[in-house]
Amino acid sequence: MTGTLPAVPISGTTRLYVVLGDPVAQVQSPALLNPIFAKLDLDAVLVPVHAKPECLEQVVAGLQCIGNLDGIFATVPHKAALAGLADRAGRMVEITGSANALRREADGSWYAENFDGTGFVAGLTEAGHDPKARRVALVGAGGAGSAIAAALLAAGADELSVCDPDTAKLNRLRSRLDAHWPGRTHTSAEPHLDGADIVVNATPLGLAPEDPLPFRPARVPAGGVVADIIMKPRETRLLREAAALGHPVHHGIHMLGGQLDSYRDFFGLG
Amino acid sequence: MTGTLPAVPISGTTRLYVVLGDPVAQVQSPALLNPIFAKLDLDAVLVPVHAKPECLEQVVAGLQCIGNLDGIFATVPHKAALAGLADRAGRMVEITGSANALRREADGSWYAENFDGTGFVAGLTEAGHDPKARRVALVGAGGAGSAIAAALLAAGADELSVCDPDTAKLNRLRSRLDAHWPGRTHTSAEPHLDGADIVVNATPLGLAPEDPLPFRPARVPAGGVVADIIMKPRETRLLREAAALGHPVHHGIHMLGGQLDSYRDFFGLG
Repeated sequence: MTGTLPAVPISGTTRLYVVLGDPVAQVQSPALLNPIFAKLDLDAVLVPVHAKPECLEQVVAGLQCIGNLDGIFATVPHKAALAGLADRAGRMVEITGSANALRREADGSWYAENFDGTGFVAGLTEAGHDPKARRVALVGAGGAGSAIAAALLAAGADELSVCDPDTAKLNRLRSRLDAHWPGRTHTSAEPHLDGADIVVNATPLGLAPEDPLPFRPARVPAGGVVADIIMKPRETRLLREAAALGHPVHHGIHMLGGQLDSYRDFFGLG
Repeated sequence: MTGTLPAVPISGTTRLYVVLGDPVAQVQSPALLNPIFAKLDLDAVLVPVHAKPECLEQVVAGLQCIGNLDGIFATVPHKAALAGLADRAGRMVEITGSANALRREADGSWYAENFDGTGFVAGLTEAGHDPKARRVALVGAGGAGSAIAAALLAAGADELSVCDPDTAKLNRLRSRLDAHWPGRTHTSAEPHLDGADIVVNATPLGLAPEDPLPFRPARVPAGGVVADIIMKPRETRLLREAAALGHPVHHGIHMLGGQLDSYRDFFGLG
């Protein structure tokens, strides 16, 4: 597979970016960002870093001491923990309690932001599914789910239904969302899809072929958009079954695509 | 400069190798090893890591927790410290007290070896300057110097003169060398070049253009080979002045070239 991927020239002067995950083999960001570095003529490379949750703090502490490392991205399951490893954080991190990007500031401190939600909404809108004034059901209140919830409300979603089996986590998220967008979020332990215009899977279910479905596509109202945040495989079982039922589907990769401009701004690239 | 370097395709499955240095911009190993990874069709990449000495332990502790990181190389000034950060070590590390390569073993522990000396001697011999039965003067008893000293004696150098202003360090090195090759090593604080067939700079002097010379080329006996371990710049002031005086010169890059086969064996590549 390596022959088909964009190639990066590396020397002693190359600046480093990493993406942390567990697992990490599925991450798409090196294949997406490295060509952008090359196109911008930046001497920089993004490499995957596999960190088990029990190792995360030690790995990040080490990375933050590396002089030529300028940025840290995180994917499942590290986004919440990463927020706690920055010195300062942006608004989406404060609302969601999770971060997917850390940058080194001029004073050497680390600043966290979360682009998952805004990236997802940018991709959704670009694909013709603007969530403004729509009813959205969101399955999963983890790192990505929390960020997407906040971004959907910020983008004007009329009513947001969030479900997650972890009630305590769900209640904490609702409190934070209510503080900014009062009364627009409803929560439940099980998916509540009635009347939804857009249904989003924000759980990791679908990464493995044997995973159960995050929700039953047959319960999505007719014409409802079914969106996934899983990037690999591109065609999850959820999206395949939803498409077979005639629903418009929205692929996970758009979430990352929608974030690329934000990353350029955040890291001051190009 | 990036456009002229060999390119590496990177995805989430890519295995990582790092080279630690302070500074690190001058390291040549990414440009040398990444094309070998590509040629062997290995999904692996070597990236530079800038670690200040006071950060080394924290950086290495973090790197050792990264699941997809298989190897750590070190250059100036980290080789001695790196030897202490492995669980076990090979013979050259025990003799020299310094390491330039760590690999992750099957049981998750870290094993250290030092290929600087054997790589230097392999490169020297290949260039037609076999040190067997020759008199060699070595300037610098740091990490690289210690490894080169041991490898020169192992390769049959008749008489070795090592100098370094740090007398305590020098005496420790001589004790370790004498334990394996008794009576063949002489030490001094200042370079002792009389009668030398080969003179080696194993100090970092020459990395910066304003550095003083490690020794005066005019004091090298006529016909004596002048060798440098500095790889960047390729033509150090030392080598330029020695060549102008008619001495055969031996460039630093050969030391790394001589190590490539050893690295392949050590890391089980290809």
